[in-house]
Amino acid sequence: MEDTIIFGLIERAQFARNAAVYEPGAIPVPVWTRDGRQMSLLEYLLRETEQVHGRIRRYTNPDENAFFPEDLPPLVLPPLEYPQVLWPPAAGVNVNSKIMEMYLGHLLPEITPGGDDRNYGSAAMHDVVILQALSRRIHYGKFVAEAKFQSQTDKYTELIKCRDARGILELLTDRAVELKVVERVKLKAATFGQDLNSSGHTSPDELKSSEYLALRISPEAVADLYEQWVMPLTKEVEVEYLLRRLDHD
Amino acid sequence: MEDTIIFGLIERAQFARNAAVYEPGAIPVPVWTRDGRQMSLLEYLLRETEQVHGRIRRYTNPDENAFFPEDLPPLVLPPLEYPQVLWPPAAGVNVNSKIMEMYLGHLLPEITPGGDDRNYGSAAMHDVVILQALSRRIHYGKFVAEAKFQSQTDKYTELIKCRDARGILELLTDRAVELKVVERVKLKAATFGQDLNSSGHTSPDELKSSEYLALRISPEAVADLYEQWVMPLTKEVEVEYLLRRLDHD
Repeated sequence: MEDTIIFGLIERAQFARNAAVYEPGAIPVPVWTRDGRQMSLLEYLLRETEQVHGRIRRYTNPDENAFFPEDLPPLVLPPLEYPQVLWPPAAGVNVNSKIMEMYLGHLLPEITPGGDDRNYGSAAMHDVVILQALSRRIHYGKFVAEAKFQSQTDKYTELIKCRDARGILELLTDRAVELKVVERVKLKAATFGQDLNSSGHTSPDELKSSEYLALRISPEAVADLYEQWVMPLTKEVEVEYLLRRLDHD
Repeated sequence: MEDTIIFGLIERAQFARNAAVYEPGAIPVPVWTRDGRQMSLLEYLLRETEQVHGRIRRYTNPDENAFFPEDLPPLVLPPLEYPQVLWPPAAGVNVNSKIMEMYLGHLLPEITPGGDDRNYGSAAMHDVVILQALSRRIHYGKFVAEAKFQSQTDKYTELIKCRDARGILELLTDRAVELKVVERVKLKAATFGQDLNSSGHTSPDELKSSEYLALRISPEAVADLYEQWVMPLTKEVEVEYLLRRLDHD
């Protein structure tokens, strides 16, 4: 997922901000939200993509969470049987609306040059890829939370019974691992973001220094994205999951 | 496009061959081809994706060529005006059926491990991304051919009048450029294909040596793909375009 997200960001960064893609009504699409406003082009493309993938059972996979779960179409393939790893009353945690907010409010402005190059379709297609990969990455927190619960059942049970969200967050946070993730993501952005179309290229050692040459995306921006948004949202999923971990249907 | 293709191949290579995705009827989808057989899962997903993207005018862009052009849906957005660069009677050259054959017959067996991991949806989604990027890359030959025609109009005109496809192919082939492309593609596959999830990583100089460590895709296989399939098909597009370059509607 990490590589998919980084590849996606590099591809999206080729295009301008293209604000019209995100503004409901700016590009007139034939679908309205459940609360009655016209969808933005991005919402429309995301929903239509979910319609197509949903029919081939993408959202029967517990790794996947739809952005428009109430609109999912009937399956055309028989559902696959997945091993039931997650605790059913907690399996439905879905923070996609927050992922969308984070993407539109923080990530997109950070990685794209401003302006409008009229490549609305291409921009929106890459947005969909990134959003779906972010969603999968962040909701993977449910599996992480389940594993943590299994390994420290007593401690978590106590915190869950007290509804101590802050205590749960502290128990599940491993700052050393987080810092490693941030460093790895930065290195990946620097490596995969090299523009190898020009003659020269940069070695990983140069990449680790403060100057980046001919990069198509800022490794710091990607590291920031992880530090400030992806990891906190993942932990939010973990906490929400754990808070429901003792519920019964 | 080159980077999109290579990123796509790296992503697809994570999954098994999954032959069922490509076999009509193996996974029952609700759409039949025009000649009456059930579509494969890949064909179905590709066609449905073209339905979604077609509505937001992807195929009004002269860079884009549909795999199912006869099935394209009506637009929901007003068409963009594109500058008319291509010669209209030649603009419709479409080799997507050959691209599909090449992909299924050569590329996919080369880059994927055999077997079946049941990730049919994920495999097919990456196939769609790669096929669309290959199609765009290869049909870009029309623009290349137009530019070549403009710069050597007399020579090409003579060959076109004699229907000398072989002579056209020779005139448009620049072996030095082709070899540079192959080298660049190999370096990209080696750089972008690094598995940075493990602790160590490889420097570009090591990557250029014959041993590749912890790579997710073989740079030679990608270079071969370009040498044996992508570049010849691009030249086929160029030749077909030029053969129609003196036609009138």
